[in-house]
Amino acid sequence: MPFAKYLAELLGVAGIVATVLGAGFMVSNLGAEPAVGLALIAMAVAAVLFIVISIFGPISGAHLNPAVTLVMLVQKSISLRDAIFYVAFQLLGAVAGAATANLMYEQAVIGANGTVRGGTGQLIGEFVATVGLVFIVLSLIKLNQGALIAPAVGLWILAGHFFTSSTSFANPAVTFGRALSGSVTGIEWGSVPAFVGVQLVAGLAALGLFKLVFSSK
Amino acid sequence: MPFAKYLAELLGVAGIVATVLGAGFMVSNLGAEPAVGLALIAMAVAAVLFIVISIFGPISGAHLNPAVTLVMLVQKSISLRDAIFYVAFQLLGAVAGAATANLMYEQAVIGANGTVRGGTGQLIGEFVATVGLVFIVLSLIKLNQGALIAPAVGLWILAGHFFTSSTSFANPAVTFGRALSGSVTGIEWGSVPAFVGVQLVAGLAALGLFKLVFSSK
Amino acid sequence: MPFAKYLAELLGVAGIVATVLGAGFMVSNLGAEPAVGLALIAMAVAAVLFIVISIFGPISGAHLNPAVTLVMLVQKSISLRDAIFYVAFQLLGAVAGAATANLMYEQAVIGANGTVRGGTGQLIGEFVATVGLVFIVLSLIKLNQGALIAPAVGLWILAGHFFTSSTSFANPAVTFGRALSGSVTGIEWGSVPAFVGVQLVAGLAALGLFKLVFSSK
Amino acid sequence: MPFAKYLAELLGVAGIVATVLGAGFMVSNLGAEPAVGLALIAMAVAAVLFIVISIFGPISGAHLNPAVTLVMLVQKSISLRDAIFYVAFQLLGAVAGAATANLMYEQAVIGANGTVRGGTGQLIGEFVATVGLVFIVLSLIKLNQGALIAPAVGLWILAGHFFTSSTSFANPAVTFGRALSGSVTGIEWGSVPAFVGVQLVAGLAALGLFKLVFSSK
Repeated sequence: MPFAKYLAELLGVAGIVATVLGAGFMVSNLGAEPAVGLALIAMAVAAVLFIVISIFGPISGAHLNPAVTLVMLVQKSISLRDAIFYVAFQLLGAVAGAATANLMYEQAVIGANGTVRGGTGQLIGEFVATVGLVFIVLSLIKLNQGALIAPAVGLWILAGHFFTSSTSFANPAVTFGRALSGSVTGIEWGSVPAFVGVQLVAGLAALGLFKLVFSSK
Repeated sequence: MPFAKYLAELLGVAGIVATVLGAGFMVSNLGAEPAVGLALIAMAVAAVLFIVISIFGPISGAHLNPAVTLVMLVQKSISLRDAIFYVAFQLLGAVAGAATANLMYEQAVIGANGTVRGGTGQLIGEFVATVGLVFIVLSLIKLNQGALIAPAVGLWILAGHFFTSSTSFANPAVTFGRALSGSVTGIEWGSVPAFVGVQLVAGLAALGLFKLVFSSK
Repeated sequence: MPFAKYLAELLGVAGIVATVLGAGFMVSNLGAEPAVGLALIAMAVAAVLFIVISIFGPISGAHLNPAVTLVMLVQKSISLRDAIFYVAFQLLGAVAGAATANLMYEQAVIGANGTVRGGTGQLIGEFVATVGLVFIVLSLIKLNQGALIAPAVGLWILAGHFFTSSTSFANPAVTFGRALSGSVTGIEWGSVPAFVGVQLVAGLAALGLFKLVFSSK
Repeated sequence: MPFAKYLAELLGVAGIVATVLGAGFMVSNLGAEPAVGLALIAMAVAAVLFIVISIFGPISGAHLNPAVTLVMLVQKSISLRDAIFYVAFQLLGAVAGAATANLMYEQAVIGANGTVRGGTGQLIGEFVATVGLVFIVLSLIKLNQGALIAPAVGLWILAGHFFTSSTSFANPAVTFGRALSGSVTGIEWGSVPAFVGVQLVAGLAALGLFKLVFSSK
């Protein structure tokens, strides 16, 4: 019975979303200067990614990301039925995570954020962030280095907060969850479709890059 | 003879409490802006958690936390007698740790702190922090990934400082120790009972969540 | 067919260069105070070094650095032909990485930076940084601790940002890439030859130091 | 022929001293606020500790610290003759490290620092820092967890920078080296004897604590 897998996807995404939104509230409350705030947010998200991938990897594979699930579907590593359930539970997890963060900071359970994001530069940033993320996952699986996925993904998103122009959302479910809160790390609804579209395309591009590198090996 | 186990629980908690209170004094002395100070405190605590769990895990199981001991008692992983001694030595460790921090910063051996903490948001924060902590420990034991407990717990508390509204005390013994010092990371006595109560309830909630995920597997 | 190796060298260097230049743009945009900005840049570069060495190590050996390739050539660990291709693809990667960073921040694809670097102190800094880097790689290979190369090199460059006077470029290909951008982490063209010269000499000095330590063992 | 061991002790201490002094110059040059500067220094030292212990551990045991060598001598893990050579080369390494940092920042090869350190609080801080350090090393050796010594010692000193009142020198050779530079991380000569005395006493106290915990096991 696959309920554990789906629950793992829900809890993992909830953890990521609660972290990024909660840390956004925290740095605002503390009046952090922007670069210091970004450092705290990035460290928190990276740490939680390490944890949720370590724990949920053995249960669901720890996709925790519709872009990853899409690529696994294209690779026939997951059935269509399971892929649909995975994404559904990822989105439920995003809602749960946003609600958790909002409640911890005594906001409305579901809020809305006005931070407009987008523009060519940020969309290229999302492309780079997501290509890297999916390429890392595919490569480390192929290399039988599964134990490195949790630290590598955590560190990739840590770095992505600092070097990509979009601060590396890199995950459609997390992007959705970040639209449900007034935290400074949120995203305005109108900015979501372009982010999600780029992330899904980037996932497929990562699969192409992966095949280019590893089939020529 | 179980004295080594008890001593391990004492030393481990003392290390955590000395660290969080000592770092509080340090950032005050340096006049750190709040977010920078929080970063230093969180890094120090996470580092020491990694160390004490690594060393005392093979000796006592490194509970270092009455909420963990309670859950282990409910799971019959520890006898009632041992559980009582564990908690007693954890509390002694909290006193020793607070005294160590106070003496390093030339304060009265045992002090008192006026930082009032609480409110719905912070108590939800403690709930989230403690559920996560206990769930991580139970899951990694179940998955035979004991070597990941030290880094995962350290990273969880690192993240918890940044994303939970309460900065993740998540430990009744540490909460008690933090009431014994005038450090900025201390807690006012009147705020202790609600924190401890939530932490113990959260430990049991984590056990329920753990069973939900792993029994459906 | 060795194309995978060359592509790995290209992608690895591109990742490093995009990171250091992108993070430079980010900290400028955020108006970070210099030490905070340096911390973010260093963490990003260290994280990406861990990742690219972990992934490309099994494919190309993850030189990702002409100074390393030179030493491997002197040690006859790589053929002259392969060494030439490695360096060529490393330089192509540097261009790709610079272009990626520039595009993410909506700059001209290839830019130029006015930051003059050099002077005796900084050149000694580069010498120290590169000797350490190459010595670490050679020693950990010799000690059969290949799995430690990725974290050790990442941490060396993290530390190097903070303690060497040059912030540890330590890599001729990365130095070249950093000349192709207006990011604050860039380097003025006239400063490149001295940096690269010192890095190559330091690589050979590291080989000498390595032989001194390990042949006397 | 034991020259490799001695050289390892020299290089390891040189690396640590160059790092802590170099990072001190860097944060001064950048005008870092004190807490941010301390964070950069601590991260740099922790990173280099991880590296030098990883590399020199298999060669010399990576004492890199006269307090550790003293304890190993008391435990008869090292001959008196070797202990004397170890300490001599550690002190030579301290000189080399200080000279390296001074030269990287275009100071006199050997300088002097006016930072007076001491007082009861700081000496208690050194005691705590050194007891912890030596206890960690002895415990992890006893537990056959040698691979954890490098990360645990690095993280202990990272934490020690933030929570001990003395910022955790915890090493007589490093203390000596830090007296040879005008860096803000230096120490005034008159403050050295008390620091070193406390460190050596603390090493022996750590041995006692270790025996108390592990003999009762």
